[in-house]
Amino acid sequence: METKRFYQQRLDEWVEESRKQAYKGRVAEYIPGLAAAPQHALGIALWGTDGQFFQSGDTDLHFTMQSISKVFSLLLALMDSGEKSVFQKVGMEPTGDDFNSILKLELVDPGKPFNPFINAGAIVIASLIQGDGPDEKSERLLQFIRHLAHDNRLDYNEAVYESERETAHRNRSIAYYLKDNGVLEDDVEETLEVYFRQCSIVVNCKQLAHMALVLASDGVDPVTKQQVIPRRYVQIAKSFMVTCGMYNASGEFAIEVGLPAKSGVSGGILSVVPGKWGIGIIGPALNSKGNSVAGVQLLRHLSQDWDWSIF
Amino acid sequence: METKRFYQQRLDEWVEESRKQAYKGRVAEYIPGLAAAPQHALGIALWGTDGQFFQSGDTDLHFTMQSISKVFSLLLALMDSGEKSVFQKVGMEPTGDDFNSILKLELVDPGKPFNPFINAGAIVIASLIQGDGPDEKSERLLQFIRHLAHDNRLDYNEAVYESERETAHRNRSIAYYLKDNGVLEDDVEETLEVYFRQCSIVVNCKQLAHMALVLASDGVDPVTKQQVIPRRYVQIAKSFMVTCGMYNASGEFAIEVGLPAKSGVSGGILSVVPGKWGIGIIGPALNSKGNSVAGVQLLRHLSQDWDWSIF
Amino acid sequence: METKRFYQQRLDEWVEESRKQAYKGRVAEYIPGLAAAPQHALGIALWGTDGQFFQSGDTDLHFTMQSISKVFSLLLALMDSGEKSVFQKVGMEPTGDDFNSILKLELVDPGKPFNPFINAGAIVIASLIQGDGPDEKSERLLQFIRHLAHDNRLDYNEAVYESERETAHRNRSIAYYLKDNGVLEDDVEETLEVYFRQCSIVVNCKQLAHMALVLASDGVDPVTKQQVIPRRYVQIAKSFMVTCGMYNASGEFAIEVGLPAKSGVSGGILSVVPGKWGIGIIGPALNSKGNSVAGVQLLRHLSQDWDWSIF
Amino acid sequence: METKRFYQQRLDEWVEESRKQAYKGRVAEYIPGLAAAPQHALGIALWGTDGQFFQSGDTDLHFTMQSISKVFSLLLALMDSGEKSVFQKVGMEPTGDDFNSILKLELVDPGKPFNPFINAGAIVIASLIQGDGPDEKSERLLQFIRHLAHDNRLDYNEAVYESERETAHRNRSIAYYLKDNGVLEDDVEETLEVYFRQCSIVVNCKQLAHMALVLASDGVDPVTKQQVIPRRYVQIAKSFMVTCGMYNASGEFAIEVGLPAKSGVSGGILSVVPGKWGIGIIGPALNSKGNSVAGVQLLRHLSQDWDWSIF
Repeated sequence: METKRFYQQRLDEWVEESRKQAYKGRVAEYIPGLAAAPQHALGIALWGTDGQFFQSGDTDLHFTMQSISKVFSLLLALMDSGEKSVFQKVGMEPTGDDFNSILKLELVDPGKPFNPFINAGAIVIASLIQGDGPDEKSERLLQFIRHLAHDNRLDYNEAVYESERETAHRNRSIAYYLKDNGVLEDDVEETLEVYFRQCSIVVNCKQLAHMALVLASDGVDPVTKQQVIPRRYVQIAKSFMVTCGMYNASGEFAIEVGLPAKSGVSGGILSVVPGKWGIGIIGPALNSKGNSVAGVQLLRHLSQDWDWSIF
Repeated sequence: METKRFYQQRLDEWVEESRKQAYKGRVAEYIPGLAAAPQHALGIALWGTDGQFFQSGDTDLHFTMQSISKVFSLLLALMDSGEKSVFQKVGMEPTGDDFNSILKLELVDPGKPFNPFINAGAIVIASLIQGDGPDEKSERLLQFIRHLAHDNRLDYNEAVYESERETAHRNRSIAYYLKDNGVLEDDVEETLEVYFRQCSIVVNCKQLAHMALVLASDGVDPVTKQQVIPRRYVQIAKSFMVTCGMYNASGEFAIEVGLPAKSGVSGGILSVVPGKWGIGIIGPALNSKGNSVAGVQLLRHLSQDWDWSIF
Repeated sequence: METKRFYQQRLDEWVEESRKQAYKGRVAEYIPGLAAAPQHALGIALWGTDGQFFQSGDTDLHFTMQSISKVFSLLLALMDSGEKSVFQKVGMEPTGDDFNSILKLELVDPGKPFNPFINAGAIVIASLIQGDGPDEKSERLLQFIRHLAHDNRLDYNEAVYESERETAHRNRSIAYYLKDNGVLEDDVEETLEVYFRQCSIVVNCKQLAHMALVLASDGVDPVTKQQVIPRRYVQIAKSFMVTCGMYNASGEFAIEVGLPAKSGVSGGILSVVPGKWGIGIIGPALNSKGNSVAGVQLLRHLSQDWDWSIF
Repeated sequence: METKRFYQQRLDEWVEESRKQAYKGRVAEYIPGLAAAPQHALGIALWGTDGQFFQSGDTDLHFTMQSISKVFSLLLALMDSGEKSVFQKVGMEPTGDDFNSILKLELVDPGKPFNPFINAGAIVIASLIQGDGPDEKSERLLQFIRHLAHDNRLDYNEAVYESERETAHRNRSIAYYLKDNGVLEDDVEETLEVYFRQCSIVVNCKQLAHMALVLASDGVDPVTKQQVIPRRYVQIAKSFMVTCGMYNASGEFAIEVGLPAKSGVSGGILSVVPGKWGIGIIGPALNSKGNSVAGVQLLRHLSQDWDWSIF
C-alpha cells in the first residue's frame, strides 16, 4: 500500500533528480528583479482536491507571476465581458511563433492576436478587464488572484513592475500595432500598466498550487465549496493551457507531460491534474523556449510515474 | 432513465439539426473525386468501448481518408522506427499556418516540419514507414488500417489517387524543400506515392469509428483484447489530435468540442472520447479552415450535451 | 528646331493627358489634412541646370512633403554624422515589403531597417540629425529644406502634424520595435516628433523642383554655385531614389521611367534628370502602391518622349 | 596625359590590391564543379565601345555563367514573347529576400516571382523562351549568348549541368510552387533543364566583357554595328541589373559602385559602364551575399577612381 510517506519520498527524489538539470538552463536576465533568482532552486507544491498537501524543495522562494498571470486575466476578462466579447478581440489558435512575435499581426487578417497567452493576446485581454482606469482594473485582478490563492497578502514587486515598464519596448510595439489594427481600443500606456502590474504579482509555489487547485476543481473553491469561476471558463482556460500554455513548446509538453499548464519567465509553472491536483512549481533556470528546465523535467517524471497525462 | 432509444433519438435530432449548416460550407473541388460528394450529406457512427454501437444519417457514404490517414501513418511510423527517430525528423508543435504552408520550412531552423499533421510532416512520416519501396510501405499501412477497421475489404480509390498524383504540385514543392533541407532522405516521388496512396483509402464512417475505438481503448482491440498499438503511441497521437488535428482551427475545436480529432478534406472526421467512444463522421461541405461544417457542429452539440470535453 | 514654346506645348499636352488617369487613384484619407486634396489636380514644375524653367497645371497647389522629406533628412543625417554612422543603423537594400511593414525587423538579423526610405529607416534617420532635442533637430531640417527650396517661408502644416501624431500608431509600433532592437537610441516620442514634423512641411511643386535641381546639379546650388551638399551624399540619395524611392513600385518605376525619384502619400513626387532637370510634381490621387497615378503617368510620358532614362 | 599604359598599370594595381580580399570569402561548394575553383583567382576584362581592350589577372580562367545567364535568358524571352507577356508572369521589384527564397510566393498575391533575377523568376523566364522542347530552347539561348560573346565555341560544362540537376531540390521546390500557383505553365523538369543548361555555360571574363559591351552599346554589336537587341530591352535589363543584379546586396552595390551588374555563384560578374565599357570579372571566393568578394572590391576601386557611377 502506498502511503503519504511513500509519495513524499518519491517527490523528494524527483525534485533532487530534476534539480540537476538546472545547470542546462539560464535565468532570465533582462531585468534585475529576475536576474537575481537562484539558478539551482527548485520547489513544488501540490494541493489535492481531497485536501491533501505535498511540498518539496524551495517552496518558500518568492517570484513574480509573469506570464502565469495570463491565465487569471483571461478568466477575469471572461467573467467580466463574456466569451463572445473576448473572442471578438482574441483568437483561439496556437501560433508556432515566439510569444513576443509581431509577424502574424501583420500577415494574418484581421490582425488580432492568435490567442490570449502570447503577449499580444494578453495585452488585449488586460484591456477587457472591467474597471475605471488601470488602477481599478489592476486592483480587481489582484483581488481575484488573492482570492484564488487564499492569501490576502499577495502584492506587487514594485521594482519588477518599474523595470518592466521601462524596458518593455517590444510590448509597447505590439500594443501600438494592435491599436493601429483597431483591436486594442483602450489607451496603450494604461493597458500596459495593467499588464505589467499583473506580471509583477509575487507568489510562492504553494500559493500557485492553491490557485491551480481551483482550476483542478472546475472552478469550485475547495474550502468554501463555492463556484468562484464558472466551469465553462475553467474549461476554456485549461484548453488554452494545453494548446498554448508552455510558449511554443506546448505541443512537446502535451506529449511529454500531458497536463494543462502555464509557465512564466521567472521560472514558475502552474499546472493542473484535472479533478485531482493543483500544482505550483518554481525553477528559475529556463530552457531555450522560456520554460523552467528543472520544472518541466520534474513534471515529466511525475506525470509518467503517476500516470497523470490527460491523453 | 436514459435508454438506448433516448440516445438514438437525440443523435438523430442533432444530425438533422447540424445538417442544416452544410449549406454554409463548400465541398472540396480541386479533384473530381472529391467534387462529386453530396453537399448536404452528414453521417455519424459511434462505437463504445463497452460494445454499444450507434449510427445516424449517411453512414453508408464512402469517402477517402485524406488527412485522417495521417494519424495512422504516424502510429505505424512510431511502431516501425520508435519515438526518437520520428521526432528527429518531425517536430511536436502546432504552426498557426495553413496545412500546406511552406513558410516555416524556410524561416525556422532547422527546417523540419513542425508536426506530423501538416502536409510537410505527413510526407516525412510516410518516408519513415518501413518497407522495401513505396508499394510495400503502402501495403503495410493499408493492412494496418484494415486491421483497425476490422474490415479487409478497405482499398484505394484509384481515380482519387491518380488525380492527387497529377495535381499535387504544392506537395511536390514541399517534398523537394524537405529534401533540400536534408529532412526527407528518401526519393521524393516514391515518398509522395505512399502519401497519395494513404490519402486515397476509402472508408465509411462506421469503419472510421472502429479505428477510433482502438484509440479510445488506449490501443487495445476491443474484440480480441489485444494491444495492437502501444499505449504510449496512442497517447502521442491523441496529443497531436488535440493540438493540431483540425488544421489551424484546432485551438477553437479544443475549446468548443474538447476531443482528440482529425479531419480530412473529404469531410471526414475521426474523433475519440477517451475510454468511451470511437467516432466516425462524414459531412463533405467544408468551412474556410478545411473542416466539415456540419460535422464540427454535430460534435459541438454532442460534446456539450453529453459532457465529453477532456478539459 | 525645338523651341521653348514647343516644349511648353508638349508639357501642357502631357499634363492634360495624364490628368485623365487621376480617376483611377484614390486620395489618401487617413487624416483630414490629406483627404481634402483635389482628386484631379496635377501640376509639374521643372528647373533646368541651365536656368530654364517650365511649369504646367496646378503648380500653386500646396501639399505636405510626407515621405519626400526622407530624402532630405537622409542628406542632413549624412552631413551631420557621416556615411559610416548612418549605415551602422540603416541598411542599403530595398525590401519588397510595404513601406510600413515590420516583418523584416523581426525576421532579418540584426533587425535594423533595410533602407532609409521605409518608415522604419526614416525614423532612425530622424534620430541621427544633430540637435539639442526635437525642436532643434526639426528646425535644422526645416532650414536645410528652405535653403534648398530658396524660400524661407516654407513651414509646417500644424493640423497635419497634429493628426499624424495622434493617429500614427503603426509608426509608434515600428519605433518601439527599433528601440527594442537597440537600433533607435533616442527617445521614441522625441524622434517621432522630428519625423512627423518633417512630413508636415508644406511645399508646392515649384519649390520641390528647386530642391530637386540641387540634386540634379550634384549638390551645387545653381544660383550661388556653392556646393551645399557633398556630391557623394547626393550620389547616395539618388541611388536610394532609384532602388527604393517609389515604395515597392520602385523596380517598375526604374523600368518605366528610369529616373531617381521620391514620392509621398500627399501625391507629390520629386524627381531628378541628372545634370539637367529638377522636377516637382503634385497629383493627389494615389495608386495601390501609394504613388501619384497621374504623376507617374506624366513622368512616364516625359521620360520616354524626351529620352530621360538613366538606363 | 593619361595613356593606355597608365590605365593598364592602375588596373594591374587594383587587381592585386583587390585579390587580397579573396581570403575573406568562400568558394561555393555545393557541387564539385564549383568547389574546385581557385580561391584567390581574380581576373578582369574590359571592352570599350571605342574598341579599346584591357585585361588583367586570371582572364583565361573558365567558369560557368550561373546566374549571370539570367540577364540573357530575360533578353531572349523579351525578344521572343514581348514585354507584356513576360511581365504577366514575372514582376519588376527587388525582394529583400535570398535569391532562392520561397516566402513571397506564398505571402504575396498572386504568387508570381518578384523579378527575373531571383531563381523563381529565372525559372519562369526559362519557360518563356520559344522553342520546341527544352533542347531547342537551350540551343537558342546558347546561340544567342555565343553571338553576343562573338565566340561560337562556347558550350556547356556537362559535369556542372549534371550536378545541378541532381542536387537542385530547392529549385525543384520553387518550380513546383510556381506550377501550383499557375505561374509556370510548362513541364517542371523540362523547364528546369533549360535553366540548369543556361547556368552551366562556360565562359571566361573576356567573353563576358564582350557580352557586356553589347549592353553598354544599347544593344548594338560594336563590330557589325547591327542592333542585335532592341534598345528598350537592354534598358529593361540594365534596370534590373541595378535594382536586383547583385542578389540582396544590390542596393549596397548601387551605392558603392553604381553600375548595372549581374553576379553568379561561380564568382563571375558582368558589368556595364553605359556607353563606355563592357566588363567581365571572375573571382571565385564569395561574400555572405553570394557575390565575388574581390570582384566587388575591384569594381568599387575602379568606379570610384574613374568616376563610373551612373548616380
